[in-house]
Amino acid sequence: MLVTDLIAKKRDGAILSQEEIEFFVSGYTKNEIPDYQASAFLMACFLRGLTPKETSFLTGAMVRSGEVLNLSSVPGIKADKHSTGGVGDGISLALAPLVAACGVPVPMISGRALGHTGGTLDKLESIPGFRTDLSKDQFIKQLKEIGICMIGQTLSIAPADKKIYALRDVTSTVESISLISASIMSKKIAEGTDVLILDVKTGSGAFMKDKKSAKALAKAMLDIGRRARKKMAALITDMNQPLGKMIGNALEIEQTIELLKGEENRLTRDFVELTDVLGGWMLCLGGKAKTSNEGRAKIRSARQDGSGLAKFKEMIQAQGGDVSVCDHPQKILPQARVKKAVLSPWKGYVNVLEAKSLGLSALLLGAGRQTKESAIDFSAGIILHKKIGDTVERGEMIAELLTTTHESSLKIAEEKFLSGLKVSKVKPKPVRLIHDILRT
Amino acid sequence: MLVTDLIAKKRDGAILSQEEIEFFVSGYTKNEIPDYQASAFLMACFLRGLTPKETSFLTGAMVRSGEVLNLSSVPGIKADKHSTGGVGDGISLALAPLVAACGVPVPMISGRALGHTGGTLDKLESIPGFRTDLSKDQFIKQLKEIGICMIGQTLSIAPADKKIYALRDVTSTVESISLISASIMSKKIAEGTDVLILDVKTGSGAFMKDKKSAKALAKAMLDIGRRARKKMAALITDMNQPLGKMIGNALEIEQTIELLKGEENRLTRDFVELTDVLGGWMLCLGGKAKTSNEGRAKIRSARQDGSGLAKFKEMIQAQGGDVSVCDHPQKILPQARVKKAVLSPWKGYVNVLEAKSLGLSALLLGAGRQTKESAIDFSAGIILHKKIGDTVERGEMIAELLTTTHESSLKIAEEKFLSGLKVSKVKPKPVRLIHDILRT
Repeated sequence: MLVTDLIAKKRDGAILSQEEIEFFVSGYTKNEIPDYQASAFLMACFLRGLTPKETSFLTGAMVRSGEVLNLSSVPGIKADKHSTGGVGDGISLALAPLVAACGVPVPMISGRALGHTGGTLDKLESIPGFRTDLSKDQFIKQLKEIGICMIGQTLSIAPADKKIYALRDVTSTVESISLISASIMSKKIAEGTDVLILDVKTGSGAFMKDKKSAKALAKAMLDIGRRARKKMAALITDMNQPLGKMIGNALEIEQTIELLKGEENRLTRDFVELTDVLGGWMLCLGGKAKTSNEGRAKIRSARQDGSGLAKFKEMIQAQGGDVSVCDHPQKILPQARVKKAVLSPWKGYVNVLEAKSLGLSALLLGAGRQTKESAIDFSAGIILHKKIGDTVERGEMIAELLTTTHESSLKIAEEKFLSGLKVSKVKPKPVRLIHDILRT
Repeated sequence: MLVTDLIAKKRDGAILSQEEIEFFVSGYTKNEIPDYQASAFLMACFLRGLTPKETSFLTGAMVRSGEVLNLSSVPGIKADKHSTGGVGDGISLALAPLVAACGVPVPMISGRALGHTGGTLDKLESIPGFRTDLSKDQFIKQLKEIGICMIGQTLSIAPADKKIYALRDVTSTVESISLISASIMSKKIAEGTDVLILDVKTGSGAFMKDKKSAKALAKAMLDIGRRARKKMAALITDMNQPLGKMIGNALEIEQTIELLKGEENRLTRDFVELTDVLGGWMLCLGGKAKTSNEGRAKIRSARQDGSGLAKFKEMIQAQGGDVSVCDHPQKILPQARVKKAVLSPWKGYVNVLEAKSLGLSALLLGAGRQTKESAIDFSAGIILHKKIGDTVERGEMIAELLTTTHESSLKIAEEKFLSGLKVSKVKPKPVRLIHDILRT
């Protein structure tokens, strides 16, 4: 098979066979196909599109490029959750222990902050001592022992995806539904989970700006999952405003602990609801609840009876973190040296609180990475005092900006924040959190 | 400007500015843009297309990437001809001296054999001693002195085109009308000619298989020429069967000498006619004839009165070749050690004599390059005794295969030849040589 023939075939809109896709993925991973041929091929895939079958072949080939974890030694149906990324989306941090506390093992492999969106790994690492670089054997051992483990992607999981994604990132071939869904699903399939719940974000702060494309992405991933015999559900959820009241690494850990302590009155409704609904589906597909509503009730109990918090502590202990963070979060977690209040320039109702602007504001404060090499300021971020629909007086505090390392960026971070804020005379209609639920 | 933004812009079908195209061409030529980004960009250009204006900007940027010859010191209107490539298409060899003999200087920069198609440079080099690697100063000096010079493309002419073409060749982005026309025209504009006559081939042996796409390519080139203020005409001509009776390097030089000696009765009608028509247009646009028909008559005279042959001799002399080739071609030119007759398996009319199959047959005999590094067997090739429409007896000789270095390939070369031959009971309708003539 000639690479140029393969490129020409997709360029002309033909449908590729499993063998042809395998040839590309395996050849590129082994450096037999050079970057310049791979990028031409990927651009042809981007513009001509891939059928669901081709996308599934691509996923399978990327799965087989590396190690596929065998979790059969861990009893029960394993369940994981994937979010397409957002601002303030620290849901996994509490969700995983809550689900595990209800008896469904959670093997979770997460990513880092990217652009204006946060990353679960960075948030966990703001807990002093917490390690996310466990080996495969440690991962499986911990899963067996306590039913939960949260780590980072290792080199051996879907190396083809890693290599292809890095090339797509610099050749403007990221935003393809087929390529995105194959990338996400290859990692999740290789990680060995039985159940996967997707949280596909839509809105200004999400990768998918509108509901239609979010739904298309969800469907593409569900289709791959169906072919790979994974049980799945996908929620299409709002990411026009940030989720919860905290944006930042240590800040989101603090919020997690509040949730696990049952202090839901201190939290925003969206954050609590999404945790319960996602958890309900994980329990339902994981075989520990008959319906997702029954699962939702169980998650609520686990939040209120302290069993979720106990599981969270077990995990922190097992992964080398300081467990006392749960009792004295503000003493143990990095605290910002500088705080600055953002005051409302207008009186009225908060109408727009754009997730992307706020995510970029947090990034400027040091909560994310401006380049791949940047160190993260774990203490940095934003505490929201208002969300869409809340009333606000002129001069009233809308949020606090926190930073230790980026004091000089406070002014531009505030400007970025305010660029995402609109206050109106008329009360806006309530934000719909969950737009749709799709099933395999 | 970010390369990724530029790629994304074309990927999404937007129209690029001159500045953006210049940024790409200059960045890629200076190795500031890596191959993998360039190939993704070129695939996006291929699939989204370029407007005539973008194509013209691309051409201009490639022209400016290197040296632009200034031929203003050469008196008169300079005229060149470009063929998109075919089998047996040695037209330039006689055409250039005939036009120069009629008073229009011909600055010709030609290419080498590519795949099943021949190259003017290789044909010229089959004349012992003939040099095609003249410097820019030598080129201009010779043009001034004798009004004709035929050389190869130097590194300093449109280096961006050279680099981009090499990348397109290995990333399946060759067959784009915009990219092809920009590539051809950048070289011709940089070479400094005032008039350019295009011979756009169509048919099974041509790059453009059908008349419609040949016409589209011609129009794209004429459009670029119009914007660069070149006087141009384009002929759409047949390349279903090979041109003339000879395919091969020394063989086509022999045919050239016959034509320049006025021995047109020994030649095929297509070869003579195309020379006259192309020459007629060159004289007309070059200001030495009022109409192309008047020009055509002048070319005919130059063939018959020996002035074309004299000019050819002058050029051979000036470029170090053995002038006696014109008097004793078979003594001076490399002669094949082995000859094999191809006999017709059927009786009837030659109906198909596929140019591509015959070109590949000649390639197998050593007349072309199977890899970039292959040495050419100048003596190798095919002498056609029949053309489409001729009657043939069963067992009658249709052609002779000639080779010195590839005797072991004779059998498969013959099979390749016969795969391109069809003999029918019914007389086929006459081949139309010139389908269309377009003007700037």
